[in-house]
Amino acid sequence: MPELRRDPVVGRWVIISTERARRPSDFPPRPATASRGGPCSFCAGQESTTPDEVWAVRPDGSPPNTRGWLVRVVPNKFPALRIEGELEPSGEGLYDRMNGVGAHEVIIEVPTHDALIEWLPAAHLAEVLRAYRDRILDLSKDGRLEYVMVFKNHGAAAGASLEHTHSQLIATPIVPMMVEEELAGALQHFRIKKRCIWCDIVRQERQSHARLILEDDGYIAIAPFAPRSPFETWILPAVHRSSYEESRSEDLMMLARLLGEVLRRMGRVLGNPPYNLMLHSGPLRAGALDHFHWHLEIVPKLTNLAGFEWGTGFFINPTPPEEAARYLRDGGEWRLIDSL
Amino acid sequence: MPELRRDPVVGRWVIISTERARRPSDFPPRPATASRGGPCSFCAGQESTTPDEVWAVRPDGSPPNTRGWLVRVVPNKFPALRIEGELEPSGEGLYDRMNGVGAHEVIIEVPTHDALIEWLPAAHLAEVLRAYRDRILDLSKDGRLEYVMVFKNHGAAAGASLEHTHSQLIATPIVPMMVEEELAGALQHFRIKKRCIWCDIVRQERQSHARLILEDDGYIAIAPFAPRSPFETWILPAVHRSSYEESRSEDLMMLARLLGEVLRRMGRVLGNPPYNLMLHSGPLRAGALDHFHWHLEIVPKLTNLAGFEWGTGFFINPTPPEEAARYLRDGGEWRLIDSL
Repeated sequence: MPELRRDPVVGRWVIISTERARRPSDFPPRPATASRGGPCSFCAGQESTTPDEVWAVRPDGSPPNTRGWLVRVVPNKFPALRIEGELEPSGEGLYDRMNGVGAHEVIIEVPTHDALIEWLPAAHLAEVLRAYRDRILDLSKDGRLEYVMVFKNHGAAAGASLEHTHSQLIATPIVPMMVEEELAGALQHFRIKKRCIWCDIVRQERQSHARLILEDDGYIAIAPFAPRSPFETWILPAVHRSSYEESRSEDLMMLARLLGEVLRRMGRVLGNPPYNLMLHSGPLRAGALDHFHWHLEIVPKLTNLAGFEWGTGFFINPTPPEEAARYLRDGGEWRLIDSL
Repeated sequence: MPELRRDPVVGRWVIISTERARRPSDFPPRPATASRGGPCSFCAGQESTTPDEVWAVRPDGSPPNTRGWLVRVVPNKFPALRIEGELEPSGEGLYDRMNGVGAHEVIIEVPTHDALIEWLPAAHLAEVLRAYRDRILDLSKDGRLEYVMVFKNHGAAAGASLEHTHSQLIATPIVPMMVEEELAGALQHFRIKKRCIWCDIVRQERQSHARLILEDDGYIAIAPFAPRSPFETWILPAVHRSSYEESRSEDLMMLARLLGEVLRRMGRVLGNPPYNLMLHSGPLRAGALDHFHWHLEIVPKLTNLAGFEWGTGFFINPTPPEEAARYLRDGGEWRLIDSL
């Protein structure tokens, strides 16, 4: 059974996930690179090799766990947290722990092995975004869960252990520390100004244009002022919304168009970089919040985190976001690709 | 000129370091692996290819910037922060920035190209630890600086861009967020219990033995209760000390013995893993603190950080620290190495 443990000094929680590799010989000398070529468990025709699906888009009305799907959601075979059991906090002297109750699911975005989501039709990518929404809504019915983090790891350097494109979600029984920090910072701004800080960011970026990448159909893509990584990009709804899962299907179609375009430009400029994509939405039990604004964060993995970042929480970023935004705004520097 | 920028929501500072790679074509498709073989700028005989040394151990009394040294400290050729100029905070609407005043130095630990520090004589490793101390003491005279983070990146996967073994230090004009968080958590404990939390941790780990790796000559090595990474290891003085730079040379000799042994065991168990080593000492202007206890953190890089960690601050660790401590306590599982 996985276990949640709290660092007694800084309060950081760690999931001790005993379902996965654990002995010294289980760690490869270098990070495994994703194997090339299919078919894999996520491919069409291999449905019986995954746990039973919990959600799918099947335009032809085909039965569950067979071919015929466009997007399919299954529980993770090696979950970091498990859905069974009641939450049981316990102590050990100074230390706090909890059994690892939660959910860990995989959103298989497309049945073909070597697709990239940015080249899917927008209507298909919108179904992926609908899977995110519907799974959050469904998991929110489980009173033990407080937060759902949806994320995508693209490429081995970004932590993807399987090549077939997919997203994941992990539902946790507590609101994660970084989400709490974001909420606290935003609340402080709201208390002073009576305005959402992300609404203020959208307003300032629209005026200055320096870090604006793209705006269309109610969504806006910007390079954040203090990015952790070169070419970090945020996508936000242009009007105030705190819960992603309240999005209407028409909204998600617009979002899919913008997200696809941003990822295509990033791919063109940087040559299909590894990246992490994270959905920051409000906590499940928070209701509509005036001070929180949901957003997607896309962080390309172009530099390695090193001791300085680990020790201080400072990031060193060699690319000013104004330059990154200019490259992404111009739609990609074709000549750079030509010269590779 | 590098620039410090603050994220307006969570308060995280980022160094926009324009001295380094910045255009899309400057990022390799995969992280560069360190090249094999010397000589490099850090090798004996290449002293003229680095900036002038600021500290060195020269048992033969040889002149600066020539051969004859054991350990040598030079300014970083491509510094993340620069020592020149006054600190000038400025604003841009919502955003805060500061010019990148600080220091960035390299501690070259040995003149030969392919040494590993754990195989150096303890008396030599003690000189490396003395370099850390003396450089912190010297930089603390500069009133613009608030913190010195000493760290070591070993291996390309841990962010080392050069193969020749070295440590680095970065002195910053503000106390980094993660250090502030550590101080705040420790102060909260102290206010309630009137005891240092790390002293309490040392006491509990000595009693339970479950996560104790090694204790000798006034220093103790433990696996922390909630480690971010498999085989994460902390080394602390067994008695309360808040400032590393107050260590006497005799103390550093003892520390070198323990640190060398821990790194040798880690190398044996995991096969020379990439790792980051970070020195957490008190802020330069804080004086002696009853609630803070300096320590070394060693984090092997065996897993990739992925979207979940980036989005939540939760870490997923597949190895319980009790098992990691058992492997490191037993001194390494030779048969695992044999089977590689």
